[in-house]
Amino acid sequence: MIKLHEIAEGVKQGKIRALAKAITLIESRNLDHSVAATTLLDELLPASGNAIRLGISGVPGAGKSTFIESLGLLLTGEGHRVAVLAVDPSSQISGGSILGDKTRMELLARDPNAFIRPSPSGDTLGGVARKTRETMLLCEAAGYDVIIVETVGVGQSEITVASMVDFFLLLQIPGAGDELQGIKKGVMEIADAILINKAEGDNRPRAELARAQYVNALHLLKPRSSHWTVPALLCSALQQEGIAEVWATVLAYRQAMATSGEFDRKRRQQATAWMWTLVMDDLKDLFLRDRNVEALLGPVQEAVAGGITTPSAAARRLLEAFKRH
Amino acid sequence: MIKLHEIAEGVKQGKIRALAKAITLIESRNLDHSVAATTLLDELLPASGNAIRLGISGVPGAGKSTFIESLGLLLTGEGHRVAVLAVDPSSQISGGSILGDKTRMELLARDPNAFIRPSPSGDTLGGVARKTRETMLLCEAAGYDVIIVETVGVGQSEITVASMVDFFLLLQIPGAGDELQGIKKGVMEIADAILINKAEGDNRPRAELARAQYVNALHLLKPRSSHWTVPALLCSALQQEGIAEVWATVLAYRQAMATSGEFDRKRRQQATAWMWTLVMDDLKDLFLRDRNVEALLGPVQEAVAGGITTPSAAARRLLEAFKRH
Repeated sequence: MIKLHEIAEGVKQGKIRALAKAITLIESRNLDHSVAATTLLDELLPASGNAIRLGISGVPGAGKSTFIESLGLLLTGEGHRVAVLAVDPSSQISGGSILGDKTRMELLARDPNAFIRPSPSGDTLGGVARKTRETMLLCEAAGYDVIIVETVGVGQSEITVASMVDFFLLLQIPGAGDELQGIKKGVMEIADAILINKAEGDNRPRAELARAQYVNALHLLKPRSSHWTVPALLCSALQQEGIAEVWATVLAYRQAMATSGEFDRKRRQQATAWMWTLVMDDLKDLFLRDRNVEALLGPVQEAVAGGITTPSAAARRLLEAFKRH
Repeated sequence: MIKLHEIAEGVKQGKIRALAKAITLIESRNLDHSVAATTLLDELLPASGNAIRLGISGVPGAGKSTFIESLGLLLTGEGHRVAVLAVDPSSQISGGSILGDKTRMELLARDPNAFIRPSPSGDTLGGVARKTRETMLLCEAAGYDVIIVETVGVGQSEITVASMVDFFLLLQIPGAGDELQGIKKGVMEIADAILINKAEGDNRPRAELARAQYVNALHLLKPRSSHWTVPALLCSALQQEGIAEVWATVLAYRQAMATSGEFDRKRRQQATAWMWTLVMDDLKDLFLRDRNVEALLGPVQEAVAGGITTPSAAARRLLEAFKRH
C-alpha cells in the first residue's frame, strides 16, 4: 500500500526521502505505480511551476558537468535550491546513465541545497523525457527553484529538452578551426543562448573567434521572439569565470519574456503540446498492439517500401484493420 | 460509373484528358471517388517512379515562376516531359492558388511537353500535400520524366515538399544587406542546393556577396550525405543565365546518390514515412471524431493549459475515453 498523501506532504515539505520515493513511483514500470504516480502528480501540480527551468546541452567533452557544478554552486550560494536532472536516451543501451552522475559533480552533490538525479532509463526518448518532465514537477513542488535539465547532443534529445524548459543553453567549445561544423542541425535554432566554454589560457583567442562566428551565424536566423536576441557568451567553468554572466542572461531572458507575456504563453503551449505528444504516442501504441494491425503491418510496410502499393492505400488498409476491432 | 481501367490506360498513354480526370478523382472530397482514386493509384503505381522529382521553394518575389518557366523550356527543348505541380496550403484561404497559375508561365503552359497544375485546395497542409504527392505519381505514370513541385516559404510546406522530392532547391534573391536574415529556420538544412536568382545587372555584386555568405552559412551545417556538398549557385531566370548549370547540378546529385545507393534508399524511406504520416493523421482524426473524446477535449485542454491537471493525466483520461468506445 502506497501512502500517497504522506509522500505528497513530504515532498511539499522538501523532504528528500519523500521526493526520492515519488520519483521512484514516476520511474516505475509497474502499472499500479503508474496510476499512483498520476494521482500524486495531480496532487502536487498546484505546488509546482515556480522554478526557472534551464536546459543545457553540449557534446561530450564540452564541460557540461563542470559548468553545471559551477553554476549550481553559485546559485546555492545565493540561496537558491537547485535540482539537476538529465535526459539521456542512450542510458538504457550504455547500461547506466553517464549524465547526472554524482561523482562528476562532487561538490554540488554534497551541497544540501542541490539535488542531482541521473537520467531515468527507458526504451524510447519519449519515455525518458516523460519521466524527467514529471520529476521536474516533483522537484518544483519540493521547493527547488532552479531546475537544470542536462542532455547530450544525440538525435532528438535536445529538441525534446528544449520543449520542457524556459531557457535552452547550448554549450560549445572552441575547436580546431572548423568548430562550427559541429553544430547539429536545428540546435542553433532552439538555443536561447550559446555559451563557449573553456575560454581560458591558450584557448582564449580561439574561443573569441568562435564567438564571433556564432554571432554571425545567429544573424542568419530569424529571431524566435522580437524581445530576445540570442547571445553568444564566453566562460571558463574550470576557472569559474563568466558563470555569473550566464545566470544574469537567464534572468534577463525571464524578465523580457515575462514582460511581453511570452513566458506564460510558452509554458501553456508546452503543456498542451506535451499532452498531444503523449496522446499521439499512446494512440500509436494502441494501434501497433492491435492484433489486426500487427498481422498486416509487416507485409504492408514491405509493399510500400518496394513500391508495390501506395502509402495511401497502405494507410487505408491498416486503418480499416484497426477499426474492425 | 467511373471507368477506372479506361482512365488508367489513358494515363499510361500520356493522354492529358485521362490525366486530368485522374487528378480530379484524387482531388475530390467525395468518398466514392476517394476509393476509386486508391484503386487507380494502385493500378498506376508500377508505371510511376521513373521521373526525377524536383522541389522548388522561395518567398514571393524570388522569381519562382520565371525560373520554372526557364528551366521547363530548357528541359522540353532537350526532349524531356515536364510536369509542374504546387503545394500551397494557403490556397483555400486566398480563394484560389497563386501557384501553378498558367498565366504566370505562358510559354511553358503552351508547350505540349509541359503540364502545369495549380495547387489543390485543402483545409490542411497534410491534405494538400497528399493530393500533390498522388498527382505526382499520376504524372509519372503519364510519362512525365521531370516533376517540379513548387511551394512557398510558408510554415511547414517546405519541409513537406522536401519529403516528397529527390532534390530540393531553395530560391533566394540578393537583398538589401541583411538578405540572409530572411532564411527560414530549418530550410537551409533541407536544401540540396541554394540558387540566388536575379543575379543580373546592378544586382550581380550583391548576388555574389550573398552567394559567399550562403557558402559560409552552409559550412556551419553538417552535411546530410557524405556524397553531396550543398552548393550555392547564381542565375538570372529573366536573362536565362545559369539555368543549365542548375540542371547539371540536379543530374550530378542524382548520379552521386544513385552510385551510393542513397537515391533508392531515400525514396523507400519517403514512402514509408509518408505512410506513417497518413496513418497518424487518420488515427488522430478517428480520435478527435470519437464522441467520448469530443465531449472531454475542451475542458481537459483548458485544465492542462491552466495548470490544473498534468499533461500525462489529461492524456490518460482522453485515451481511456477513446478506448471505452
